[in-house]
Amino acid sequence: MAGNTIGQLFRVTTFGESHGVALGCIVDGVPPGIPLTEADLQHDLDRRRPGTSRYTTQRREPDQVKILSGVFEGKTTGTSIGLLIENTDQRSQDYGEIKELYRPGHADFTYDQKYGFRDYRGGGRSSARETAMRVAAGAIAKKYLQLTHNVVIRGYLAQMGDVCCELKDWSQVEQNPFFSPDSDQLEALDALLRGLKKEGDSIGAKVSVVAENVPVGLGEPVFDRLDADLAHALMSINAVKGVEIGDGFDVVAQRGSQHRDEIRKEGFQSNHAGGILGGISSGQTLTASIALKPTSSITVPGKTITRQGEEVEMITRGRHDPCVGIRAVPIAEAMTAIVLMDHLLRHRAQCGDVTHSQK
Amino acid sequence: MAGNTIGQLFRVTTFGESHGVALGCIVDGVPPGIPLTEADLQHDLDRRRPGTSRYTTQRREPDQVKILSGVFEGKTTGTSIGLLIENTDQRSQDYGEIKELYRPGHADFTYDQKYGFRDYRGGGRSSARETAMRVAAGAIAKKYLQLTHNVVIRGYLAQMGDVCCELKDWSQVEQNPFFSPDSDQLEALDALLRGLKKEGDSIGAKVSVVAENVPVGLGEPVFDRLDADLAHALMSINAVKGVEIGDGFDVVAQRGSQHRDEIRKEGFQSNHAGGILGGISSGQTLTASIALKPTSSITVPGKTITRQGEEVEMITRGRHDPCVGIRAVPIAEAMTAIVLMDHLLRHRAQCGDVTHSQK
Amino acid sequence: MAGNTIGQLFRVTTFGESHGVALGCIVDGVPPGIPLTEADLQHDLDRRRPGTSRYTTQRREPDQVKILSGVFEGKTTGTSIGLLIENTDQRSQDYGEIKELYRPGHADFTYDQKYGFRDYRGGGRSSARETAMRVAAGAIAKKYLQLTHNVVIRGYLAQMGDVCCELKDWSQVEQNPFFSPDSDQLEALDALLRGLKKEGDSIGAKVSVVAENVPVGLGEPVFDRLDADLAHALMSINAVKGVEIGDGFDVVAQRGSQHRDEIRKEGFQSNHAGGILGGISSGQTLTASIALKPTSSITVPGKTITRQGEEVEMITRGRHDPCVGIRAVPIAEAMTAIVLMDHLLRHRAQCGDVTHSQK
Amino acid sequence: MAGNTIGQLFRVTTFGESHGVALGCIVDGVPPGIPLTEADLQHDLDRRRPGTSRYTTQRREPDQVKILSGVFEGKTTGTSIGLLIENTDQRSQDYGEIKELYRPGHADFTYDQKYGFRDYRGGGRSSARETAMRVAAGAIAKKYLQLTHNVVIRGYLAQMGDVCCELKDWSQVEQNPFFSPDSDQLEALDALLRGLKKEGDSIGAKVSVVAENVPVGLGEPVFDRLDADLAHALMSINAVKGVEIGDGFDVVAQRGSQHRDEIRKEGFQSNHAGGILGGISSGQTLTASIALKPTSSITVPGKTITRQGEEVEMITRGRHDPCVGIRAVPIAEAMTAIVLMDHLLRHRAQCGDVTHSQK
Repeated sequence: MAGNTIGQLFRVTTFGESHGVALGCIVDGVPPGIPLTEADLQHDLDRRRPGTSRYTTQRREPDQVKILSGVFEGKTTGTSIGLLIENTDQRSQDYGEIKELYRPGHADFTYDQKYGFRDYRGGGRSSARETAMRVAAGAIAKKYLQLTHNVVIRGYLAQMGDVCCELKDWSQVEQNPFFSPDSDQLEALDALLRGLKKEGDSIGAKVSVVAENVPVGLGEPVFDRLDADLAHALMSINAVKGVEIGDGFDVVAQRGSQHRDEIRKEGFQSNHAGGILGGISSGQTLTASIALKPTSSITVPGKTITRQGEEVEMITRGRHDPCVGIRAVPIAEAMTAIVLMDHLLRHRAQCGDVTHSQK
Repeated sequence: MAGNTIGQLFRVTTFGESHGVALGCIVDGVPPGIPLTEADLQHDLDRRRPGTSRYTTQRREPDQVKILSGVFEGKTTGTSIGLLIENTDQRSQDYGEIKELYRPGHADFTYDQKYGFRDYRGGGRSSARETAMRVAAGAIAKKYLQLTHNVVIRGYLAQMGDVCCELKDWSQVEQNPFFSPDSDQLEALDALLRGLKKEGDSIGAKVSVVAENVPVGLGEPVFDRLDADLAHALMSINAVKGVEIGDGFDVVAQRGSQHRDEIRKEGFQSNHAGGILGGISSGQTLTASIALKPTSSITVPGKTITRQGEEVEMITRGRHDPCVGIRAVPIAEAMTAIVLMDHLLRHRAQCGDVTHSQK
Repeated sequence: MAGNTIGQLFRVTTFGESHGVALGCIVDGVPPGIPLTEADLQHDLDRRRPGTSRYTTQRREPDQVKILSGVFEGKTTGTSIGLLIENTDQRSQDYGEIKELYRPGHADFTYDQKYGFRDYRGGGRSSARETAMRVAAGAIAKKYLQLTHNVVIRGYLAQMGDVCCELKDWSQVEQNPFFSPDSDQLEALDALLRGLKKEGDSIGAKVSVVAENVPVGLGEPVFDRLDADLAHALMSINAVKGVEIGDGFDVVAQRGSQHRDEIRKEGFQSNHAGGILGGISSGQTLTASIALKPTSSITVPGKTITRQGEEVEMITRGRHDPCVGIRAVPIAEAMTAIVLMDHLLRHRAQCGDVTHSQK
Repeated sequence: MAGNTIGQLFRVTTFGESHGVALGCIVDGVPPGIPLTEADLQHDLDRRRPGTSRYTTQRREPDQVKILSGVFEGKTTGTSIGLLIENTDQRSQDYGEIKELYRPGHADFTYDQKYGFRDYRGGGRSSARETAMRVAAGAIAKKYLQLTHNVVIRGYLAQMGDVCCELKDWSQVEQNPFFSPDSDQLEALDALLRGLKKEGDSIGAKVSVVAENVPVGLGEPVFDRLDADLAHALMSINAVKGVEIGDGFDVVAQRGSQHRDEIRKEGFQSNHAGGILGGISSGQTLTASIALKPTSSITVPGKTITRQGEEVEMITRGRHDPCVGIRAVPIAEAMTAIVLMDHLLRHRAQCGDVTHSQK
């Protein structure tokens, strides 16, 4: 099975390269009768869009999404939804010089080895530009989950380099270009990024996603656990090298008496598990984090080889973010929404409608 | 799609509960003509088997696997392989007292909420006993990968509580009950576990898996990347709360100039990526780590509620490991093997036989 | 994806060869809380079982099915159900002489070409013995459909050679060894089969399946239409060479004014469509028919070649039915049940519970 | 799993309604490096296109397909291929009057029952207009199969009403508006259709597909047999009510001694099986036939009800073919190509490259 599809019942299949004609996707399995407009999708696309601040790539794409099918008289029909974003600002001339070499840290080498050649324009299919369609598809899931079950899915920048951001205030997240929930760290983030721009370098990031009001019972034993499917979806985002659910790697040093979330009549007394027990949602708030590597598209010279095996030094020209993690926030939210939506439908198929039981 | 299957082309579907009649699985998609005997599977089953040391549960199961189909005259036929392990030491009477309550940190609550009732005997389907079949199926993948491509997949205990084990010596791993590659830490591990046993508590662990000689080109853009599928497979192991590929969460504080693995004629100069670039194997050594939570099956009393909502205190009786992470080593190897095998077949379908190109 | 699985949400995966240790299957996706015992499955297995009349193979298998998992305290748990039938009457010595040659009309040649070798004992995996597990799995679907939606699925012999059986009386079907609903043709059928036995020849058959009380709305546009999935399931039965829905091939000579089923307040005025419109169930009675070829296992000598390409004549020894179509009745019912069950769950996932609005 | 995808490894996912903005599809799993242009797809689209003769609907659509991704410098890249056809001649005003009633023989009733409402413009998603994308996707499969294995897939009209067309001359098929291979029947076909036009009625048809040079070994036991997957693909075409492989329903009256295809050194001596044995291609010519019902879009008045249950009489205005079977020829070819392509990749995954062995 080729890899451009995610989800079993809520299925998203995407196509498109960084500098091709258009990006698109098909969203299948959407329940009928849900109000849906292009504006519903555009909001998150705008949050992800490049060129919105001086910290992100200056590629300017309006990223205007069109709904081509599956919606009639303002409501979903239950049939497949086709979405399209045309590429308008392609500047593929920028990329001619990397045609014959493998940028270190990029997929150039592996695509070439796998397929025998590659679309070298801006990374082709391996470019994070592809994630625009994930955001568009995820927005459908987000809307459905919100509308029918009041599920709220939000992400934020938890760390960039050594600067940690605490989840102090959700309203802050949309008010600064870093998606930081911690206004006390805005200056430190700004200083870090300005320094990196000067040096032509980049930095990694940690992004967290929080889903509230997740119905209890989502997730399928034993392989398609909710956490396993989340790990798959989040790890599939470009540049991600690690995924945590709940306390994540902190559990290595925890004791059982400390980690287990005790239960009282009024609900769970803590949430080390991050809202998932035995691979099934517990009704508690779902929490997940991802680690994003620093982009290799930097102007610090790097050693590599050409397709012919000749050793060269290179720098990456063009428009790039010093911290790709920033724009990953809406993508991580979208992937979380897609997984939850899929499992909501899977649960319904076998067990009927979800119940909002005690927490 | 119900969740008891993993893999697209190399497909493993399992069944069985902790205290049911038997565990079993069907392995589909195995290439024909591969020599295979029950002994090939038994080796890893014995490594995972409980009751082999004083640190693991004293439940004694011979875990003798039978091949019921798909092998003829010592070779795989290309048709589905049925595997069976009968449960012999079930002692379900031990579990009567937890019938009506939700053990904190376990799947009791979520299974009950999802399905309306549950097999309460030893966790039923949510028990890690299910992983025996993963190990058996993984052994087929391991053998195929080793035989045809010389791929070697090995795991080890990287950390338990605060005790870190360095990968000093692979030969050590099979010589101590902790799967530790670091003989200098055996005493510390022993002391830690003995202390926990006395206190009736448990501890988390970090397990790492290393796959050598992985062919270049495995992994499918954009969702079914090799790392995404590994994350899915590893996160689906009981108790896992985090997955890392290569440098994992360390990348958050790294710079691009530091993280990117430069390339020279003789190959990559470092391996921060853990052998995967753009979701596709690079031919470098694949490295992944998982975080395993401390088991909640402890004798330190814990607060919980009954199915009827009454508040109670409970302790877990029965036979349990103070560190479930130890026995996760062969399971993590098996899941890695299953994913690599699946992607080898997927690659072959679309791109033909893999090539062992430069590293 | 290997081919031993059918269904998306109600998933059946089988294993086992004609003369292997055992046959088995895993049924995944069964809703929880459904009463289920081995006796529920045994009834249809007994209907399919060989050796029950002088017209069917004298191989005597009790075909006793065991439920190994997924049922607790008499009810399905929602987790995967493992089923097993041990092979007891294998007599593999009968098959030694066909080891080196390709029986004409059998899968010997194609299996050998595909896999490089084959399990030659009784056809190995290509034997219709495999269908026992379909019948067992289908019995679960049948029970669920009957219990929850009062769906009744029944099959009958519609034709054997030139002898046509009309659907005169359902109660007849279980009272004669031919599954004939037409008592007026029992003598003709008997005479036909006795003649064939004498000649050592075999004959084709047409089997029809009727499903009543099918909820309206089952089936997914555009590829996974209910009729398309039925065609897949029915054509996958050994020896089937044709599938019809409703009027089937008779539509070639029909006019639109004649074929379309007109609608009045009280419902459809006819049922040329066989209960499916646009790939979706209409709530009318579902009707399908299959054509089964005459078995090639006959004692009339036939020309073939050996694996080495040498030309030989052969006859098929052993125990074989002169009309394999007879025993296909419970198999066709089972496949129909599996498809309907799968689509019931798929419908529920996306559109919620079905409505009985049949008109 | 929603139903808009076909294939496991060669995967086609479609979207689009009869009168929506556009039709599109994503073709995933195409091997890299295959030369592909829009012209490759346009040829079959033109063969299927309406408005090409006085016998087919006068809706005039250029059906110009655009390749949006997955092709770079004239060759497939191995990543997903996005295809788009814009709807230009929609005339949705024609359909206002059927908004509130259920056309008999159409999917209006079932879509409404399934989804709660429907896109009533020209049948919405249930319209055969959707098949344009199948033809486009199938053309990719056709090209690949032809290029790499010299497989030739061709269809023809075998019967319309009572007029039977023999396969006398392949070159005739593209030279008459009926896809008839039998020039002796052209007048009879013309007379039949002219009579139907006058009466405002329609007629059914039988279409056959022939695939030559199919490699031996394609097809997966036991459910995903080549014939079963063909039956699924062909039955999923609008208006199809029956599928036959090889001799099809004629086998009911055949004897085993007559049906089995004997083998000699030079190959099979006959082809009753239609090129498939045990669900696996034998290397013989593959033959399949389908029955297409007469369209219900006729001007003979018919009885039906409105959505509110009121009884009415209706006739279908608009542009419709008296025999929809005619245009099914390229669609049936496309579906056959998709299935063969999928199984070629599946075979390669497990068993390596196909061999053209003896026949």
